[in-house]
Amino acid sequence: MKSIAADRRRRSRAGLAVVTALLAPLAASAAEGMWTLDRLPLKHLQAEYGFAPDAAWVQHAQRSAVRIAGGCSGSFVTPQGLVMTNHHCVRECVQQISTAKKDYVAAGFYATELKDEVQCPTIELNRLDRISDVTARVKKATAGLQGAEFSKAQKGEQSKIEAECVGDDKEHTRCDVVELYHGGVYDLYKYHRFQDVRLVFAPEESIAFFGGDPDNFNFPRYDLDIGLLRAYEDGKPAQVADYFPFSANGAEAGELTMVLGHPGATQRQLTVAQLERLRDVDLVSRLLYGSEARGLLNRFAEEGSEPARTSESERFYLENGIKALKGELQALLDPKVFDVKRKEEAELRAYVNANPARKAKYGKAWDEIAQAQGVYRDIETRWKFIEGRRGFQSDYYYFARSLVRGAAERGKPNAERLREFTESALPTLTQDLLSNAPVYPEFETVRLGWSLTKLREWLGADDPFVRQVLRKESPEDMAARLVSGTKLGDPAVRKALWEGGQAAIDASDDPFILLAKQTDPEARALRKRYEYEVEAVEKKNAELLAQARFDKYGTSVYPDATFTLRLSDGVVKGWDEKGQPVPPFTDIAGAFERATGFDPFKLPESWVKAKDRLNSAQRFDFVTTNDIIGGNSGSPTINRKAEIVGLVFDGNIESLGGAFWFDERVNRTVAVHSGAIVEALRQVYSAERIAGEIEAARKN
Amino acid sequence: MKSIAADRRRRSRAGLAVVTALLAPLAASAAEGMWTLDRLPLKHLQAEYGFAPDAAWVQHAQRSAVRIAGGCSGSFVTPQGLVMTNHHCVRECVQQISTAKKDYVAAGFYATELKDEVQCPTIELNRLDRISDVTARVKKATAGLQGAEFSKAQKGEQSKIEAECVGDDKEHTRCDVVELYHGGVYDLYKYHRFQDVRLVFAPEESIAFFGGDPDNFNFPRYDLDIGLLRAYEDGKPAQVADYFPFSANGAEAGELTMVLGHPGATQRQLTVAQLERLRDVDLVSRLLYGSEARGLLNRFAEEGSEPARTSESERFYLENGIKALKGELQALLDPKVFDVKRKEEAELRAYVNANPARKAKYGKAWDEIAQAQGVYRDIETRWKFIEGRRGFQSDYYYFARSLVRGAAERGKPNAERLREFTESALPTLTQDLLSNAPVYPEFETVRLGWSLTKLREWLGADDPFVRQVLRKESPEDMAARLVSGTKLGDPAVRKALWEGGQAAIDASDDPFILLAKQTDPEARALRKRYEYEVEAVEKKNAELLAQARFDKYGTSVYPDATFTLRLSDGVVKGWDEKGQPVPPFTDIAGAFERATGFDPFKLPESWVKAKDRLNSAQRFDFVTTNDIIGGNSGSPTINRKAEIVGLVFDGNIESLGGAFWFDERVNRTVAVHSGAIVEALRQVYSAERIAGEIEAARKN
Repeated sequence: MKSIAADRRRRSRAGLAVVTALLAPLAASAAEGMWTLDRLPLKHLQAEYGFAPDAAWVQHAQRSAVRIAGGCSGSFVTPQGLVMTNHHCVRECVQQISTAKKDYVAAGFYATELKDEVQCPTIELNRLDRISDVTARVKKATAGLQGAEFSKAQKGEQSKIEAECVGDDKEHTRCDVVELYHGGVYDLYKYHRFQDVRLVFAPEESIAFFGGDPDNFNFPRYDLDIGLLRAYEDGKPAQVADYFPFSANGAEAGELTMVLGHPGATQRQLTVAQLERLRDVDLVSRLLYGSEARGLLNRFAEEGSEPARTSESERFYLENGIKALKGELQALLDPKVFDVKRKEEAELRAYVNANPARKAKYGKAWDEIAQAQGVYRDIETRWKFIEGRRGFQSDYYYFARSLVRGAAERGKPNAERLREFTESALPTLTQDLLSNAPVYPEFETVRLGWSLTKLREWLGADDPFVRQVLRKESPEDMAARLVSGTKLGDPAVRKALWEGGQAAIDASDDPFILLAKQTDPEARALRKRYEYEVEAVEKKNAELLAQARFDKYGTSVYPDATFTLRLSDGVVKGWDEKGQPVPPFTDIAGAFERATGFDPFKLPESWVKAKDRLNSAQRFDFVTTNDIIGGNSGSPTINRKAEIVGLVFDGNIESLGGAFWFDERVNRTVAVHSGAIVEALRQVYSAERIAGEIEAARKN
Repeated sequence: MKSIAADRRRRSRAGLAVVTALLAPLAASAAEGMWTLDRLPLKHLQAEYGFAPDAAWVQHAQRSAVRIAGGCSGSFVTPQGLVMTNHHCVRECVQQISTAKKDYVAAGFYATELKDEVQCPTIELNRLDRISDVTARVKKATAGLQGAEFSKAQKGEQSKIEAECVGDDKEHTRCDVVELYHGGVYDLYKYHRFQDVRLVFAPEESIAFFGGDPDNFNFPRYDLDIGLLRAYEDGKPAQVADYFPFSANGAEAGELTMVLGHPGATQRQLTVAQLERLRDVDLVSRLLYGSEARGLLNRFAEEGSEPARTSESERFYLENGIKALKGELQALLDPKVFDVKRKEEAELRAYVNANPARKAKYGKAWDEIAQAQGVYRDIETRWKFIEGRRGFQSDYYYFARSLVRGAAERGKPNAERLREFTESALPTLTQDLLSNAPVYPEFETVRLGWSLTKLREWLGADDPFVRQVLRKESPEDMAARLVSGTKLGDPAVRKALWEGGQAAIDASDDPFILLAKQTDPEARALRKRYEYEVEAVEKKNAELLAQARFDKYGTSVYPDATFTLRLSDGVVKGWDEKGQPVPPFTDIAGAFERATGFDPFKLPESWVKAKDRLNSAQRFDFVTTNDIIGGNSGSPTINRKAEIVGLVFDGNIESLGGAFWFDERVNRTVAVHSGAIVEALRQVYSAERIAGEIEAARKN
């Protein structure tokens, strides 16, 4: 299962750190590249595959794809707004609509009738309707500025552009200024928002994630990792003009496949100093913190069905994240990788230093970035634990901070606000803040208590902030007191505090509001330090490096991933695993062979019963050479006729190094075969209503 | 709390990997050095402190110190065989003698009368009686050999020397061939063994480890980390001629302090390739594995008093180990450290390459070591999980493997056996194997089930070994089946299998015996690969590098730590922590100020009650510049009169980098003040019998 792009907002988002992304590699291999739709590599597509998409094809593809705001991809597959994505992208919704009596994660969900489709409390879909270039405007605003001024001016201008774009139609419009080529280009992405999104179908997790954590990021695979949603408008299914119909037979080995999706972040052009910092600081600390949380929560889940159910999503995303980060760490611990990166850097440096004008303009960029890494190494722990909420793992705390900050920020001019409180960002924030997704007090107590002990451990018992927060209370007691005393589990209470603004916050004696008020000054101070002394320095200098690259190599390259819509081209193809060829397809028979009867290799009852009806030779999952990364989960794999041939849900282990470079020999995308989807809907789930809708769309 | 040197045998010992240790740094600072007692730096002691110990002083010190076989240090403090060490060194014993009704870890233990002293099932004391040089003999046996032959010949000769030294007196004698200066010197250490060791006193853990994990490796500290044992012979207290009496007043700031103890392992002369491997492979994988185990076990402990009690030692050592390893990793992640190491290495290489004869002799050593690191990187995971038992965390499995291997190994000539089954090693093994220390089935089920899932995760579900072990069973079910079916919890059953030899093993259908038999071929194969392709290569070449160093720098250096007796000199001295001076002493009043009433900052009831009786100005803990490392736990700190002034129990955070180099500016040893020990015994514990015995010894 591919890691979703953005950390989820409430539970895990560790602050706002996004690793600086620069330009793409130069000697791109055949399938390498995550191309924006306005700058597709048309010559390459023609030369490599004899494929020449016209403007209509491109616009149709762009409008058939959707982004799931939490960090996934998807696509419309029928004109009635039916959206295909991964099970693991809708999993939190499936858990949220479950109860102690009915666990849809385990049992699966199917809306027999349209009226049975259930609203997902925190899912929002965005369809990209327009891209326009705003580079000149952004650059003008920051010309000649540095550090804090650079950062403020840039954010201010971006907020302004976004607010103008959204206008009065906040409900249906989202606008983001997107930085590409690390500041080489600023584009304005205008999205149509669908906030009423309902769950149509999700299979049992035991087949969606067959093989579980052990098989995650592996292939051969036998997973039906699908979730079907429907976009609604005005209480009715949204009617969409653009969608990808299913192909009749799926793709054959060697056939061109294109993935349309939203890769979250790649770090293919970081400097050596940044990569070292990523390896030494970020990956190690996240993995250590996450591993302990995993041990804790997996044991907690053993304590009963409610602990298991309420911690389900958290454990799921945690394990997936650990596996992904471990793969990235392994890649960065390979000494060969740094040899390559050092060589690349030395070449560009030599080019820059060979010319006095270039040297004067770009020569200091590497050292300034390296110096910012030193600052980052100094502040990382405090910043992650305080501003990034590693020390305060709790939905209640997330609510409280959003409310406390929201009151203060909304009183400021749009351009001066923290980014997540600008007018264009508010709808997403309020959807999350005011949703009726359940919060589980027992689970909250365990998570918060544990994370407070980690706060004390990583910062030290004598840290003034730690002393101020814990006073003479034990972390566990403090967590229990806060959780039992809060009213923030009630969406109405949160709504009142949100709408009541600063006065309501000032008057509140909710223990989490008090905690958020107490911790906010330090959190903001750390964020400021990060943004001004690290992020702004990296941005300014990375922009210089991007220009140096343009000077040397020209412009026919793709930008690092930024959770914006991209097209990747590739072919259906296995690979060679230490001398063993791995064929590109699995079939349904293989799933029955691999099953042991024990979790996570236990097939659901529905499949066992359907065994004789199922076409055992039907292709199940397959691999392609497409270049993807976390965030591409749920992406459609389409053929040159823009028909669905597969549904991307994972990469192989070797693909995890794709964060840093693309190795076409072994990096593979894993997808569910379109034929397996239809076969399962019909033969296993008797989901005639939906299978028929998909079929009808295909025949249109 | 200082990490103990060796991983404990049953629970955590991850195979037999000991990082190759070479020569010590050259430009030693004043307090740097862990000196063997036959090669003390007499000139340095004279010049620095005006102190000139004579042979009698040295022999007295040598025979007053003891080693605790599991990985700690201690000393005789009265002629009646009373031994002072740390609480955390006797902790496992305190847990083992506890029951569901009486938890001595929490409540503390004091034997009011001699007859109340309780035998510790797995503690053995070793007193070093003689050191003799066997270098010529060992080198002769390995002359001209390489790889597997080198390894076999060396082990064979060492086993022979040890067996001759022990002779018929296995019960009282232990002999170890010790490799110093990484093969520059081989010494034979002959120890007197005390196997009947009884617990006399242990305070409540809440004061022994006041501040718990948050304060671990920190200072200021307020810990009474003491455990008192007594060596018995023939059922009576052992009468010893050599012991360290308590000093009247302890040490003053600036005063010379000497630590006599058994530092476990330092890695101060590893090559850069070895240090990188240590950082990238060993530390990261141990920390990730350990962090998840920590989360799991801490939650398990929340489930009831029995889960808490039975998992107590494991959790304690785990947390301590994690903090220590994290400190080491932090040290190795500091780019400056590698800059220094690279520079040192380049200097020696330049010296070697400058002369054709030297180049021919030593020139390839670095590259051969580097190549062996490549092998190690390839085999590490499988080796640790299979031979190192990371995938089989269970006392039962440890017993089963010892029994299965013991039957096979005892049938071989002594020189050909695996090291832990040689005649000189058998007493320690059998003490452990046949002890009546309790095994807790529920805890075993949890640990084993979890570790089997890790086996599957780290090796992959499709690994042939994993498939062979798990078949189609789930790890948790398999663990439950094995634990419920085994009889190995009964020491009598283990004894019968041990004494029954191969026939008994062949006839056994105990599920753990079957598992050990099944897994042994692969485990042995991995061990062989490690020993021949990594360890032997490292040893041979490290010996060459040691000689190159001798050529260049001469011989007035100390060998890396090897869990053998060392003397370290230093002074009582605080340090400067980022601009803030840290004074060298704390006092009893400070403990009461730091207490919050909540674990781990909760003082025991006995201390709260004794508050008014206690001398609040009494010095409690203190720091010195002595150079120590894990294994020094429990070491006596003595003055020039060979009187106890303190009891070493920890180092500060900065000391953790001491594995790789000694930074006298900030590396500090943390000890309990001798005065605090007597004050607590009298005023808090009314332990007049023992306080009187200590006092009487002082006045002799």
